[in-house]
Amino acid sequence: MQGKFIVVEGLEGAGKSSAIASLVSHLQAKSIATLTVREPGGTPLAEALRDLVKQNWQEKVSAETELLLMYASRVQLVENVIKPALRAGKWVIADRHDLSSRAYQGGGRELGDAKLQTLKKLVLGDFAPDLTLLLDLDPEIGLERARARGELDRIEQETLAFFERTRARYLEIAAQERSIEVINAEQPMGAVHQALINALESALFGARG
Amino acid sequence: MQGKFIVVEGLEGAGKSSAIASLVSHLQAKSIATLTVREPGGTPLAEALRDLVKQNWQEKVSAETELLLMYASRVQLVENVIKPALRAGKWVIADRHDLSSRAYQGGGRELGDAKLQTLKKLVLGDFAPDLTLLLDLDPEIGLERARARGELDRIEQETLAFFERTRARYLEIAAQERSIEVINAEQPMGAVHQALINALESALFGARG
Repeated sequence: MQGKFIVVEGLEGAGKSSAIASLVSHLQAKSIATLTVREPGGTPLAEALRDLVKQNWQEKVSAETELLLMYASRVQLVENVIKPALRAGKWVIADRHDLSSRAYQGGGRELGDAKLQTLKKLVLGDFAPDLTLLLDLDPEIGLERARARGELDRIEQETLAFFERTRARYLEIAAQERSIEVINAEQPMGAVHQALINALESALFGARG
Repeated sequence: MQGKFIVVEGLEGAGKSSAIASLVSHLQAKSIATLTVREPGGTPLAEALRDLVKQNWQEKVSAETELLLMYASRVQLVENVIKPALRAGKWVIADRHDLSSRAYQGGGRELGDAKLQTLKKLVLGDFAPDLTLLLDLDPEIGLERARARGELDRIEQETLAFFERTRARYLEIAAQERSIEVINAEQPMGAVHQALINALESALFGARG
């Protein structure tokens, strides 16, 4: 049987890594084989692109270039890793996917959602997650956590206004699309993880959380 | 006054480099300031992308990924180098541009021209060359010349059928678009260069060649 594709989304410092660990252990307890991936990255070429996109360049990196690199990395990961794993029956849990581009490049960089949807269709067709869990929090809180973790990369160094536009676009899209569940990531970690498990159970196992 | 943007196109071994040298010396004799660029490449980030796209990878490089990397490199070159040079009044002579993607990824890799045109509009808008000079030749002849020059990169290692599709797409597009001039690149070099100069004079200086 084909596996399910679950994506964890959210701003820097939203707690995506620990959310993924919690989802994986919940699925493993049900004897479901899982594979975790992160974007950008996940194949040798995609990891090389991750380095290029996060690096500080002397030249201006155009918003369109950033967008194209994110999709180049995404296509490699989808074709060479995610689709084969799903076909093998594994459940794939991704740290970021298409919604990140719609929020960051579409919202934060103000390219607009129409352009983003056109590009997505062009290079990934109808491929889409079964469930997206969006960890929502105030960007000031998230950036503080990210800063505490160490040096910020080129995108993490953006202005607060950039992350506010990104968060707003995340929430706008979530309000329109049924496969996206918003989780309040400002709660204590235990409550966040419980909310994630409830959303997962309700969406993919038909349970009432 | 805004400079002109001239692109030299063609398969491997078509003689683009010597064609560009001949165009540059013709323009310089008219006291026109020129800048030559090549694709992919031409900025630090674009050159890093050139390396990635030409490299042999253990993993399959999807046609869409290749396409996205070509455009990522192109956007950096257009925004950071070509547009500023044109605004400064320089004439820019490029070794490959958008038509290469339409021929190689659209034709050779069979992604289709509609997809290519959509992507181009999305990331480059209406930006386009004033004149494209297409050096046309039998791919077998071109590949022989390229092989004689040394090792072939990932794309140059493609099958003859790939290059035949690429050539066919080049010619199809040239037949439809008035800003593209086809030059027979199987002629002796002197005749090729004369044909290039005639096309340039006729298109951009209103002279009858």
